Amino acid sequence: MKRLLITGGSGFIGRNVLAHLKPLGYEVFCVTNVSSAPSDTGVTPVACDLMDAVQVDDVMQRIRPTHLLHLAWYTAHGAFWTSERNLAWTGASLNLIRSFATVGGTRAVFAGTCAEYDWSAPSPFNECLSPTKPATLYGVCKNSLRQVLEAYTNRVGVSIAWGRVFFLYGPGEHQDRLVPSIIRSLLNDKPVVVRASGHVRDILHVTDVASGFAQLLDSGVTGPTNVAFGQGIELGTLAREIASIVGREELLTLGLAEPTPENPASIVAKDGKLREATPWNPTVRTRDGLAELVDWHRHQSR
Amino acid sequence: MKRLLITGGSGFIGRNVLAHLKPLGYEVFCVTNVSSAPSDTGVTPVACDLMDAVQVDDVMQRIRPTHLLHLAWYTAHGAFWTSERNLAWTGASLNLIRSFATVGGTRAVFAGTCAEYDWSAPSPFNECLSPTKPATLYGVCKNSLRQVLEAYTNRVGVSIAWGRVFFLYGPGEHQDRLVPSIIRSLLNDKPVVVRASGHVRDILHVTDVASGFAQLLDSGVTGPTNVAFGQGIELGTLAREIASIVGREELLTLGLAEPTPENPASIVAKDGKLREATPWNPTVRTRDGLAELVDWHRHQSR
Repeated sequence: MKRLLITGGSGFIGRNVLAHLKPLGYEVFCVTNVSSAPSDTGVTPVACDLMDAVQVDDVMQRIRPTHLLHLAWYTAHGAFWTSERNLAWTGASLNLIRSFATVGGTRAVFAGTCAEYDWSAPSPFNECLSPTKPATLYGVCKNSLRQVLEAYTNRVGVSIAWGRVFFLYGPGEHQDRLVPSIIRSLLNDKPVVVRASGHVRDILHVTDVASGFAQLLDSGVTGPTNVAFGQGIELGTLAREIASIVGREELLTLGLAEPTPENPASIVAKDGKLREATPWNPTVRTRDGLAELVDWHRHQSR
Repeated sequence: MKRLLITGGSGFIGRNVLAHLKPLGYEVFCVTNVSSAPSDTGVTPVACDLMDAVQVDDVMQRIRPTHLLHLAWYTAHGAFWTSERNLAWTGASLNLIRSFATVGGTRAVFAGTCAEYDWSAPSPFNECLSPTKPATLYGVCKNSLRQVLEAYTNRVGVSIAWGRVFFLYGPGEHQDRLVPSIIRSLLNDKPVVVRASGHVRDILHVTDVASGFAQLLDSGVTGPTNVAFGQGIELGTLAREIASIVGREELLTLGLAEPTPENPASIVAKDGKLREATPWNPTVRTRDGLAELVDWHRHQSR
């Protein structure tokens, strides 16, 4: 039996990944920092403060997971880019892999980010060839963590992959982020201005990101691996699609912003290792995903 | 008044650095994990487990240091290159700088290592130009820590320098390391074989390393800074010097070893920022330092 410990299982990606794990034959233990359990998911909740090394060692000794999926991090919208809490999460993640290796764990997947790449280098970004040069504290911490993990797991014989997340959307995303903020404004009859409408981003539905992590975990793929669609969409095109679904195109204004180092013209993944080495393929067409999401927001606001 | 918190103050470099700090006008608080105090050094001992974030925050709140000199790390001879304890020290060091910044600290110096450099690149190694590509877990952890520190301190306005230590010698060094092991063998009438006698290393007396850290702390120099002599010596030449001082040249055999990635032909610092930007200069001539050290070992073995 594959025994999986997952962190961040109640987060945006995490709560979507659980459904993809059972069919792959995992017994799933989900770290929570509250005592309330996910009810009917077949997942065993495990109360543990990941900042507490003693608690982590205790959980590892008790569960002895063969697999580890580490999605937890500080992700407060906007604040996460520069928060000092990135430092504590780097330390907690290092402690987690050490503790996992100590009880004989064999396979781990950690969440990385497209913000590790040098955004001034040409996009699309390839896991093996594109340079890393993170410009934010969040990106630097993830990138530094990855370097230590590679050296450490290589030495102790843990197989590890590092899933680089790009942009995503779906039900339950923080309402201030781009896609939900456009939808909510339009549903509330408010005008929407998309300033950088010419910028191109690699956007993937959260359920496909989640299945990507599940497939990555179940594979033997190692090292940095883009968990992304592999194609870009102009933000203006994306916004027009949403406005057309809502039926309020007249509320939408598209601007053009100069690219900046923090907001470059294109952030797109090179279609790479994940599709080549696993059965993974995105299943949600953007139009369908957006239509479903607009419905979801309509129901939320009732 | 400059209030300095120092970690690793009882280590090989640390206990030598204390004497250089008082003349520079520092009130010195020295973190120890035991309750025994350094006696007549004018240093205030502070009991604190650096692995415990609550204790660290408590000490920072109590002392409110303006300056931080972080020398503590796991340094057990041989084992430190690959030990998993490098991970915990990375996390503890991240916590330390966060806690220091939180109480308004303004100037920090952390100990780095020549093992951050790409040892397959041409030596001497320049702080600004030479590539980093650490081959060991110790080097990777230090290098990753440095990257996070740069991003974090830049954001919170702490001035930080990163002192890269090369090779050192002096009284109190672990007896299994190269210089003391040669001295002790010769003093005990045992033959000595120096296998890689053609390899060139940058070796500096510990008191000069210590004064380098003190001057670096007291300067405005930022970023990676070699704390090294800036000239190499062949290990064979070094061993012959020792044998000549002891008067037992006949016990010495010099071999020639092929350079390897872990043991390259030359590891030498480019004479750089430290001498240019501070009053620092090494004061101990190698012959004198070795003669004094041989005397020290003679007294130790009585």
